[in-house]
Amino acid sequence: MKLATLRTGGNSTTAALAMGADAYLPLPAPDVGALLSDPEWRNAVEAIAAAASDADVVHASAAELAPLLPQAGKVICCGLNYSDHIREMGRELPEFPTLFAKYADTLTGAADAIEVHGSSKVDWEAELAVVVGLPLFRADEDQARHAIAGYTVANDVSMRDWQNRTLQWFQGKAFDATTPVGPVMVTTDDADGDFDVRGYVNGELVQSGNTSTLVFSPARLLSYISQFTVLRPGDLVLTGTPGGVGMGMKPPRFLNDGDVLTTEIDGIGRLENSVRIHQNDAGAAVRTPVTATSTKE
Amino acid sequence: MKLATLRTGGNSTTAALAMGADAYLPLPAPDVGALLSDPEWRNAVEAIAAAASDADVVHASAAELAPLLPQAGKVICCGLNYSDHIREMGRELPEFPTLFAKYADTLTGAADAIEVHGSSKVDWEAELAVVVGLPLFRADEDQARHAIAGYTVANDVSMRDWQNRTLQWFQGKAFDATTPVGPVMVTTDDADGDFDVRGYVNGELVQSGNTSTLVFSPARLLSYISQFTVLRPGDLVLTGTPGGVGMGMKPPRFLNDGDVLTTEIDGIGRLENSVRIHQNDAGAAVRTPVTATSTKE
Repeated sequence: MKLATLRTGGNSTTAALAMGADAYLPLPAPDVGALLSDPEWRNAVEAIAAAASDADVVHASAAELAPLLPQAGKVICCGLNYSDHIREMGRELPEFPTLFAKYADTLTGAADAIEVHGSSKVDWEAELAVVVGLPLFRADEDQARHAIAGYTVANDVSMRDWQNRTLQWFQGKAFDATTPVGPVMVTTDDADGDFDVRGYVNGELVQSGNTSTLVFSPARLLSYISQFTVLRPGDLVLTGTPGGVGMGMKPPRFLNDGDVLTTEIDGIGRLENSVRIHQNDAGAAVRTPVTATSTKE
Repeated sequence: MKLATLRTGGNSTTAALAMGADAYLPLPAPDVGALLSDPEWRNAVEAIAAAASDADVVHASAAELAPLLPQAGKVICCGLNYSDHIREMGRELPEFPTLFAKYADTLTGAADAIEVHGSSKVDWEAELAVVVGLPLFRADEDQARHAIAGYTVANDVSMRDWQNRTLQWFQGKAFDATTPVGPVMVTTDDADGDFDVRGYVNGELVQSGNTSTLVFSPARLLSYISQFTVLRPGDLVLTGTPGGVGMGMKPPRFLNDGDVLTTEIDGIGRLENSVRIHQNDAGAAVRTPVTATSTKE
């Protein structure tokens, strides 16, 4: 099963990909996370799908993808996790996962433009992301594996100038609406095991890796994180990026205004995001505060 | 005005401290963050207070304090911010604030026991925390100052063994229910300017600082953070800790099971938390997953 979150006017709805990926069947939950919070969600979706007719679906060409998990309570990321990349950099394999946090505001949709203000070193990190399906707290790896609802595609777009201003990466990793996630979550019964992860800039392949070389597997990451904090349905864990980021190139290479970033995992789907880079100016530095109900500008 | 969040059975309510700190007047919002989301909250509180009688209040001895902001969307912390402490360590004053993230799950109440599993290096960090009162995005310092709803007391209790496992501090800073926050938020019209921040272990003064020596003031921190992510009413920003943490002592000193940690800011209030430290054992390593609606075990 493939699930998406679609924009519907000012709101959103979750939907199941139907009819061989040509159409979405809307489901009665505002997003994938809300759907997963119902322990009976699989049965509910199957019943709705069985009763659906062609009139119930939204054709893919008319669907606008929201961030897959616009209300994710936790978005936890792992750095330095591809052993081939770590070895090629001459480093030792880590004993513990390097973890950092984002917020739901950091996420954006699979086809959205990524708008960055005030950074001149915008870099890419194509990643497999894991969607939590069951509550987990101090779980072992088997419990964690069982709690994975499915997988999706993410790009941990990183503002390297901000990331490296201090020892803590957070500020360069948490720019609002800069981490595309989607287009769908594929449930573990439809896709599991190892995935090929690829990133492209303007159609040129810049990153390619396979999750078989992860030091910390999805289940191990979820188990580890759950030792200190509870994970809940709809939380998202990004599993790290393979070699080929711009910062590691000689000379380093960063995204330019107008570039198109493509992130692809076979069996899940593809993100395609244009990048808009705005240097700070007097007008950009101060903006009218958003209203309390806006999630982003 | 002093506002608290009180536990009421399985729920919570916000309340205003009344009658010279002896009693709380419950208000129609589940927590301080929810109250602040109403732009008219001051008028509403004043109207309720004007109409209240003795029968409406909960005496302080009968009130149980919840974490001040149990649903905070963002809890962003600044490290290395007290210039006297930075200078005594022989470091340069930083150009940019060192920021890291927690989640609302990390917070706990002003009188709660802090239960830690699986760490033997539990350390203290007494801090002034800032409660956001208005939405902020790419705000200047004046806008940010105007958006501060008030101040509270926090202790960024840190599991140094986990914090130092990797370059990123997050995992040692985000153990569920280990950062006490409260007992109240004092609005800026009742307390502003510089604060004395003190931390005690079993009654012994271990930390003492004044926020006049902060490198990045509350308004500057909020303005800086708002350059990359929106802040909303009820979000919390921790401003860093003065000298005197256990890790910096010679030899290093950490909390023991049964210790009492006290954190105090004149004009705001005092946290008093007993500390329970459980070493991991076979039974502690694996627990039954919590239910989807629990916020913590």
